[in-house]
Amino acid sequence: LVRREITRIITPGSLLDPGSLRSKENNFCLALVASRHRIGVAAADLGTGEFRAGELGGEEELVNLLCRLRPSEILLPEEASDARPASIRIGRLEELLGRWGKPVLTRHKKWAFTPEHASALLLAHFRTKSLAGFGLAGAPLALSAAGALFHYLREELHQDLSHVREIAAICREELLILDAVAQRTLELLSASSRGKSFLEAIDRTLTPGGGRLLRQWVAEPLRDPEKIRARQDAVADWAERDRSRRSLREILPGIRDLERLLARVAQGSASPREIGAIKDSLKPLAKIRELLSPSGQWAECRSGLEPQDDLVAEIERALVADLPLSCREGGLFQAGFDPGLDALREAAESGKRWLLEFERSERERTGLRSLKLRYHPVFGYLLEVPRGQLAQVPPEYVRRQTLANAERFTRPELQEMERKILGAEGRARELELELFRALRQKLCDRLPTLQKAARAINEIDVAAALAELARERGYTRPQIVEEPRIEIVDGRHPVVEQALDGERFVPNDTYLDGRQARLIILTGPNMAGKSTYLRQIALIALLAHIGSFVPASRARIGILDRIFTRIGASDDLAGGQSTFLVEMQETANLLRHSTERSLVILDEVGRGTSTFDGLSIAWAVAEELCDRNRCLTLFATHYHELAALAESRPEARNLSLAVREINGEAVYLRKVVEGAIDKSYGLQVARLAGLPERTIQRAAEVLSGMEAEEEDPQSKAVQ
Amino acid sequence: LVRREITRIITPGSLLDPGSLRSKENNFCLALVASRHRIGVAAADLGTGEFRAGELGGEEELVNLLCRLRPSEILLPEEASDARPASIRIGRLEELLGRWGKPVLTRHKKWAFTPEHASALLLAHFRTKSLAGFGLAGAPLALSAAGALFHYLREELHQDLSHVREIAAICREELLILDAVAQRTLELLSASSRGKSFLEAIDRTLTPGGGRLLRQWVAEPLRDPEKIRARQDAVADWAERDRSRRSLREILPGIRDLERLLARVAQGSASPREIGAIKDSLKPLAKIRELLSPSGQWAECRSGLEPQDDLVAEIERALVADLPLSCREGGLFQAGFDPGLDALREAAESGKRWLLEFERSERERTGLRSLKLRYHPVFGYLLEVPRGQLAQVPPEYVRRQTLANAERFTRPELQEMERKILGAEGRARELELELFRALRQKLCDRLPTLQKAARAINEIDVAAALAELARERGYTRPQIVEEPRIEIVDGRHPVVEQALDGERFVPNDTYLDGRQARLIILTGPNMAGKSTYLRQIALIALLAHIGSFVPASRARIGILDRIFTRIGASDDLAGGQSTFLVEMQETANLLRHSTERSLVILDEVGRGTSTFDGLSIAWAVAEELCDRNRCLTLFATHYHELAALAESRPEARNLSLAVREINGEAVYLRKVVEGAIDKSYGLQVARLAGLPERTIQRAAEVLSGMEAEEEDPQSKAVQ
Repeated sequence: LVRREITRIITPGSLLDPGSLRSKENNFCLALVASRHRIGVAAADLGTGEFRAGELGGEEELVNLLCRLRPSEILLPEEASDARPASIRIGRLEELLGRWGKPVLTRHKKWAFTPEHASALLLAHFRTKSLAGFGLAGAPLALSAAGALFHYLREELHQDLSHVREIAAICREELLILDAVAQRTLELLSASSRGKSFLEAIDRTLTPGGGRLLRQWVAEPLRDPEKIRARQDAVADWAERDRSRRSLREILPGIRDLERLLARVAQGSASPREIGAIKDSLKPLAKIRELLSPSGQWAECRSGLEPQDDLVAEIERALVADLPLSCREGGLFQAGFDPGLDALREAAESGKRWLLEFERSERERTGLRSLKLRYHPVFGYLLEVPRGQLAQVPPEYVRRQTLANAERFTRPELQEMERKILGAEGRARELELELFRALRQKLCDRLPTLQKAARAINEIDVAAALAELARERGYTRPQIVEEPRIEIVDGRHPVVEQALDGERFVPNDTYLDGRQARLIILTGPNMAGKSTYLRQIALIALLAHIGSFVPASRARIGILDRIFTRIGASDDLAGGQSTFLVEMQETANLLRHSTERSLVILDEVGRGTSTFDGLSIAWAVAEELCDRNRCLTLFATHYHELAALAESRPEARNLSLAVREINGEAVYLRKVVEGAIDKSYGLQVARLAGLPERTIQRAAEVLSGMEAEEEDPQSKAVQ
Repeated sequence: LVRREITRIITPGSLLDPGSLRSKENNFCLALVASRHRIGVAAADLGTGEFRAGELGGEEELVNLLCRLRPSEILLPEEASDARPASIRIGRLEELLGRWGKPVLTRHKKWAFTPEHASALLLAHFRTKSLAGFGLAGAPLALSAAGALFHYLREELHQDLSHVREIAAICREELLILDAVAQRTLELLSASSRGKSFLEAIDRTLTPGGGRLLRQWVAEPLRDPEKIRARQDAVADWAERDRSRRSLREILPGIRDLERLLARVAQGSASPREIGAIKDSLKPLAKIRELLSPSGQWAECRSGLEPQDDLVAEIERALVADLPLSCREGGLFQAGFDPGLDALREAAESGKRWLLEFERSERERTGLRSLKLRYHPVFGYLLEVPRGQLAQVPPEYVRRQTLANAERFTRPELQEMERKILGAEGRARELELELFRALRQKLCDRLPTLQKAARAINEIDVAAALAELARERGYTRPQIVEEPRIEIVDGRHPVVEQALDGERFVPNDTYLDGRQARLIILTGPNMAGKSTYLRQIALIALLAHIGSFVPASRARIGILDRIFTRIGASDDLAGGQSTFLVEMQETANLLRHSTERSLVILDEVGRGTSTFDGLSIAWAVAEELCDRNRCLTLFATHYHELAALAESRPEARNLSLAVREINGEAVYLRKVVEGAIDKSYGLQVARLAGLPERTIQRAAEVLSGMEAEEEDPQSKAVQ
């Protein structure tokens, strides 16, 4: 009598259950479609209703995008199995994606990836006459990807997309680009091993939605100085008003994952507890609104935070405080909310009172003192009589069930009452379900308003969180200037500084103006802190571009177009590539693409091969970056010989990390000073690492032998 | 009227749902307890019923164990929050675990971690007088951990542990140890980025249980030559019998995850489909048994594969072919299986026939030609009359529901029949549930026998899979000898060989006998294949120790105690450790722990510091390993100067990867030859990697300048 249908299909990219998702990350499903030279992309997060589309110029941009969005599922057009798609080679895609948990690759019908199909579908969904307002007019590939994604989610997976209300742009020209290599080596979104990622270290948001927005800010730093300054204003506003910020941050933890909860409402799958959570999250809207400063920058947020007191009141009047997980088992609604429900509940209750009374009176009437009323799921209510008293059972009792030590009987009036109780209970449950659906529908009707409120809270949370971070750790507002430059006074590494347990982080200055100062050759012994210094400059520049304050006593940062890094070794042996080859590939990439607006960070280029080969490559690369690409470059090296290069160029400077030798032991001062240094203290580090003393002594002998030979090439080698 | 209880609590370590687990990996929950010098460990996989316990000598062994088992949850004794446990420092544990998805750390009551509590609990569970049979007699810490784990799973999580029938040892002295570093650098169980892990590359198992067993073999290679040879015999047996192996491998894919399915039976949570899957998996037992060769080595497996024809027949007779997911909605049992069920079903059916007849006769009797019988979940069966014909409705009809265009009525006989139908359907469902539980109980009663069969299938699957691999890729059986040595003729890299797409892998020999030949200094230009050669030797040695055949035309492998690796750079900057420090720590570890029975693989030690420091350390380390530790060592390096070291020692040899220069271009022959090589071809690799030609030219100039200076120190540097 009940017809079952597939109501929804769940795939990794359409997972909605809040329990199985990381609250501070989006869960994107992507669609990709490629022509010879361009790639169309669409991305949907069903959990929040976010939908984006755009076009990319090539594979590299795609990789950067994948790094930012980290989709869990990717939709591609079906291909004949032997044909290779023009531009997205799946093998390469899989290889690129391997770095983090691989997304599922799904093939979808090819005809769904056409602009004609897409227009029809999207025009119908948004009930508009043109898609120009969504920025899809001149972008047929973006349109095709968006249409295919829509089609897949709605027709294939039976997902409700009514909460998708707009298509945002996947923008590219307005962003400071950090490619996959830079994202990984700077550990922006995830730490490579232990320790915190950059995002984790700076994240002070208190709501899941705020966490997701901050993640997006970090993954997509801006290049428009005006937009950056607007964000800085918002952060500064909260940073200045300590008391309001504190009040706000007491309220925010009570706000649940509104975006995802609202998506569940839109899908018609929100549970009673989820409705309760929405109600709790809507309650403090007015209070949050009061905490906003009157300045104009909050106008949009303020209008988004329209109080929902009527809705909150209705839900509070309707639902009980301690809500069940499921809406199918009743017990959701308060007494007094619905007269019909109250009547059904009373009927069931009075029936149960009747049962107790019936048991008592039958016991009296028959003289069976051990007679007991029992409930059995198959036979219903029965009167149980112990085997010893069976002789006294009255003839009108009808036997129904035999147990080891007792028999169970029924009576017509008992059956009649059972029917009444079960009927009343069943109907009460059905009625509660109906009432609950109506209540949920009310929320659904107000979805756009509620989504606006959720987004306003995200914005407020992120701005206040960055303000909190700034106050907590003494960050200052960097001056954003148009021309590329990096001036930092007393800069610190935002992640390492926090990891130091009580120890003081030694701050350092940086000056690169793009004209007089472009290239810094950084030397210094092992463990002196070269890598930390390089990375801290990149991270401070990044913080400035997302609109945050920075860990420095003063900073002036110019707009950059890209940050490149070539740090550390990353092996790719199974892929048959040698460490040195990977190093050279990354170096070639930054030589080709860095501009006067780029920041380039190089750590130990040339290390993967023999000494002379490596040194000559390092030399040529540093020259090229300084003289031709003219980018802002930091170049850390163990090749002291490179100091000569800086001496012949006014735009280049030698810096080093200071060491003081005390009783033959090196003491690291962690301070950047002028000039190169020509000792590495490698043996000292080896001792520190626990290399046996015997081995260290032997290495020292070998070393002094080599140094003697260096002085006097006639004396032959070590023995 | 229904009392609800917590029936089970799910945590990451007690997840049982087959859908959310990787089928070829165990899901372990661990308990740890530490004294000053030792650590007690217990591990349980509820999904398979596996339970192990043992004691470890210290933190390092613990790390190795964690790498092998990769638990998803770890249980520790509660501590006063300020106290630090003697030996397991949680901070460090978290840091160690960070490399793969962190397990959940759970604190459990401290008193549960006592040997007294544990004995009482375990004696009761296993119904034995002593725990000596489990190897826990002299191991109070292992006992404590086992007891705490039992207590946590059973009392805290309400898990049924009846399928845990024994405690296996977490052994240590009998294993070839690959520590965490070696496991990672050799990519044993998981690949670092793209490409396949070693396990994935060699895995030809066809059942989930076989996959788990192979994983265990790889993670825990043996040191007992007899046990290794027994495994080799099993592999050889299947390798020789192509036709039987092929038949077996046609049957195996039909076998489901028996161990986990049986665990669901033990927990009382197996669904109808799962019972069906067990039946399908038991059916081919006899056929598999026939395929075993008659030799004695299969005696135990043969006895484990007792055919279960009676059980299979009973399930086939009972259950329908297309089973529902849930056991609560009926439709499980075939007609004719149970007379009572047939009767209830007939009652419901006849009721429905009555309804159709009633609708027809009422239509006739009243003349209402549009009268229709409807079902409403709240009001039940109703007679619907369109608004236009309401005047003709007979007076005995009782109005129940008003719709837009119709009214709905009821009649006493209709209500009576509704009660009968719903009652019969409900009772049929309840009866099916009872019958299903009884059937499941029958399986449960035979659990130990069925578990034995599951384990026998795992063994057979793994042996046949390794045989398949050997035949597919031309592996040969290595001779296992007692004294440490590695002799390989025409060895290949098991993973890289498979990744080559059609290209031929160039095989290479290896000879290390521990006496005359102990140290190999391997030079060769970038990309010539040094790292591949080093790793292939380690992997061949490992394959030999798990009982597999090896990719070589001939091999003689002696029993090793450990394989050490120091390969590549792994940064740990957020932790404040420099690359070079990590490199030196790993080197110090292998200098301290390697013995004459160890294989040590070093790739580019000393690269992280200045040239002279690095070279002198590399020199001292190589000397030490050769002269003092006397282990089997392979040392790849770009320091051509190290060749001198080999020349002064008979036990050391210089090998290099051959290059032929053709028209100034290096052609890699991938062949290992005698003697050192002193050119790195770094610039050629840089060109290959796409470094701009201009930069290459400049580097070449710089290089020839330096070489000139080397010849004649008077000519000053490059400009």
